[in-house]
Amino acid sequence: MKTLYKNGTVLTFNEEGSVVVIRNGYLGVENDRICWLGDTPPEGDYDETKDMAGKIILPGLYNCHTHSPMVLLRGVGSDLPLDQWLFGEVCPIEDKLTPDDIEAGSYLALMEMIAGGTVSFSDMYFSPERTATAVANSGMRANINRPVQSFDPNERPEDSVRIKEAQALYEQFNGCADGRVLIDWCIHAEYTCTEQIVRAVSDLCRQVNGNLHIHLSETEKEHLQCKEKYGKTPAEWFEVLGAFDCGAFAAHCVTLEDGDIEILKRHDVSVIHNPTSNLKLGSGIAPVQKFIDRGLNVALGTDGAASNNNLNLFEELHLAALINNGELRDATVMTADSVLKMATVNGAVVQRRKDCGKLAVGYKADFIAVDTDRPHMTPCLDVPSLLVYSAQASDVALTVCDGKVLYENGEYKTIDSEKTYYNVRKTVERLYG
Amino acid sequence: MKTLYKNGTVLTFNEEGSVVVIRNGYLGVENDRICWLGDTPPEGDYDETKDMAGKIILPGLYNCHTHSPMVLLRGVGSDLPLDQWLFGEVCPIEDKLTPDDIEAGSYLALMEMIAGGTVSFSDMYFSPERTATAVANSGMRANINRPVQSFDPNERPEDSVRIKEAQALYEQFNGCADGRVLIDWCIHAEYTCTEQIVRAVSDLCRQVNGNLHIHLSETEKEHLQCKEKYGKTPAEWFEVLGAFDCGAFAAHCVTLEDGDIEILKRHDVSVIHNPTSNLKLGSGIAPVQKFIDRGLNVALGTDGAASNNNLNLFEELHLAALINNGELRDATVMTADSVLKMATVNGAVVQRRKDCGKLAVGYKADFIAVDTDRPHMTPCLDVPSLLVYSAQASDVALTVCDGKVLYENGEYKTIDSEKTYYNVRKTVERLYG
Repeated sequence: MKTLYKNGTVLTFNEEGSVVVIRNGYLGVENDRICWLGDTPPEGDYDETKDMAGKIILPGLYNCHTHSPMVLLRGVGSDLPLDQWLFGEVCPIEDKLTPDDIEAGSYLALMEMIAGGTVSFSDMYFSPERTATAVANSGMRANINRPVQSFDPNERPEDSVRIKEAQALYEQFNGCADGRVLIDWCIHAEYTCTEQIVRAVSDLCRQVNGNLHIHLSETEKEHLQCKEKYGKTPAEWFEVLGAFDCGAFAAHCVTLEDGDIEILKRHDVSVIHNPTSNLKLGSGIAPVQKFIDRGLNVALGTDGAASNNNLNLFEELHLAALINNGELRDATVMTADSVLKMATVNGAVVQRRKDCGKLAVGYKADFIAVDTDRPHMTPCLDVPSLLVYSAQASDVALTVCDGKVLYENGEYKTIDSEKTYYNVRKTVERLYG
Repeated sequence: MKTLYKNGTVLTFNEEGSVVVIRNGYLGVENDRICWLGDTPPEGDYDETKDMAGKIILPGLYNCHTHSPMVLLRGVGSDLPLDQWLFGEVCPIEDKLTPDDIEAGSYLALMEMIAGGTVSFSDMYFSPERTATAVANSGMRANINRPVQSFDPNERPEDSVRIKEAQALYEQFNGCADGRVLIDWCIHAEYTCTEQIVRAVSDLCRQVNGNLHIHLSETEKEHLQCKEKYGKTPAEWFEVLGAFDCGAFAAHCVTLEDGDIEILKRHDVSVIHNPTSNLKLGSGIAPVQKFIDRGLNVALGTDGAASNNNLNLFEELHLAALINNGELRDATVMTADSVLKMATVNGAVVQRRKDCGKLAVGYKADFIAVDTDRPHMTPCLDVPSLLVYSAQASDVALTVCDGKVLYENGEYKTIDSEKTYYNVRKTVERLYG
């Protein structure tokens, strides 16, 4: 099956990672891969041609840190401090969630992400087998894990139920759905885990050359309490325990110290920037410019919908481009180009998807089309700027992943939206009465 | 003509300014005013009944600081510092604009605002008679002015062309279109005006009990240069010259000092918070919590689309709720309720529209309906939080102003969108070649 997308404005990245814009471009797709990209038509026959006039085609977006089923908790505990929000409001609801609820929430999250131009996400939540199955069915990509926590200082790794679940998840799902589903490893955070468990998960991850997803220095309180307890920053603590010896990516990193940044650099650990969540919970503003200047790979995340309160990467693009400028009183700190790279190329690096994240011949056909025939998208003078500062997620008119159309002009092609809404309604009625 | 909007979730404010949510509410409209609001159906006959199930009805939004025709410059000079952006990129384009261009840009801006739930705005730009006429035709409300600048230290008020234009605008348009169009007075800023001109405009404003729109302490540079030049902060300088003796509202206020806040309080000057623009241009983060704590009236603005780059008040709601939390590392600083009040009730105060800004019997029927039947708006647990943290401007399904439907399900009822796009295209081709 070959499809030609013509007349669109195509935004991609060159070898150096700089934005390239092709006006009146041609994007050819053969099955799951891009077979042509340029400002002239390709040779050969195509089964189908789609006119993309008035649309910007760009790589599908990566949401590299979320807890997708938490869409079921959207709006719970808004405007409360983190502790009250988490333990007073979120945890009591989570305690009632069943695997069926997680499945319903996962599909709702996938619908939201697909409609908003996200093609891949890195998830951290319980009952992950339900999310993994939903992703496989939906046509999206995701890196999924079973977060490991351990509150008992005497718990041995071989007795950890969570580690067993993580191993089972890896064995069952890693690489499934033509590689669209990858299984990562996860230590929830320093403050929710013990040294022996961190060592054990890190070992398991290393044995399979895996990818480790953690929360790191999200708040000042967490950071300072760790220093008090261990005489080390969370990054130092994780480094000593071997958590960074394989691949790893760390969400938040709001309160990293300069030495911590060096640790991440030394071990090639990516940072996942979650601007909305960090602002909303009062955690602060991550020093993203420092990370970039030091050569770290920085990608974007929404965090869960209970602290955001959506999975809208266009909002994260927007915020990531704005907040460091405001904090540092410098309009040049973050540019539209740099945040677009975070949400695409850099996200694929985090997820170790070598043939994803940009539009180039031989790469996976993961892309979205954004409609510019709308007042707030007129005129279309500066394409990156329009996408980052003017667009809304709802401007996404088409989402394609692995060559397959998942969403087009408001219609879901792979998810039964009525059934999803029905299941979510049932869950919500039970949870909230 | 009487219309009953039933089954919607209605959000409004009580006498104390607190949010009130009515589930399964009834909103009755007779001509241009609200004649019923409650959780029970009204008595009497209605000509039409509209089912608003799945929608949140709330007061229409107020954009209290913008330069609406600048949508024609959307994306110009993105990611540059303010000086380079303004003088290197924006001014050379503005120099080519004709009144017909302003008209085309005004209609484009009105389309964007109406589709995004804005019912009224406070504008500051040249050829304002074209904008005023467009507003009158569109069914929206606006407070419009002719900004006065004066760079010649010897220019006498009686010779000022801008003052004459401002007077003519006031005489021709103030109160027109059933009071939907009001004419304000405007001194552009301290750094673009002389003392005698400020005094003269302030006098003219006072003579008609008018409303004065100014830029105030937007950047540190402006603020410090004023202190160097006059030995006074901009707020002190304006106070001495009588600019605050009548009603006034001041955009930005990023670098106000504590004494300046007292000046604004003393004269009942409203602050217009423009979070996106202040972040994008690297101006900083306004200390909004201080303004609120001191009892100032704070409303929201988008600023012009060249420094935003849209006129999307849902983004301003979102940012206003987030950025001070992040800066102060306190999740409780700004709440969803407080920013919704800024965008509605407080905006009507700025524009001195006594019977506008909330939904109550006898008030003007200015309201919008936001669709919650979308993945990112599900579940609808916390209405203010959903509007501020989850919604997009595109979720607006209905915009009603003065009892008249301006926009419904993607269709403009009062503006010829094809003609507008055609005129904008012509202008853009000429401006940018």
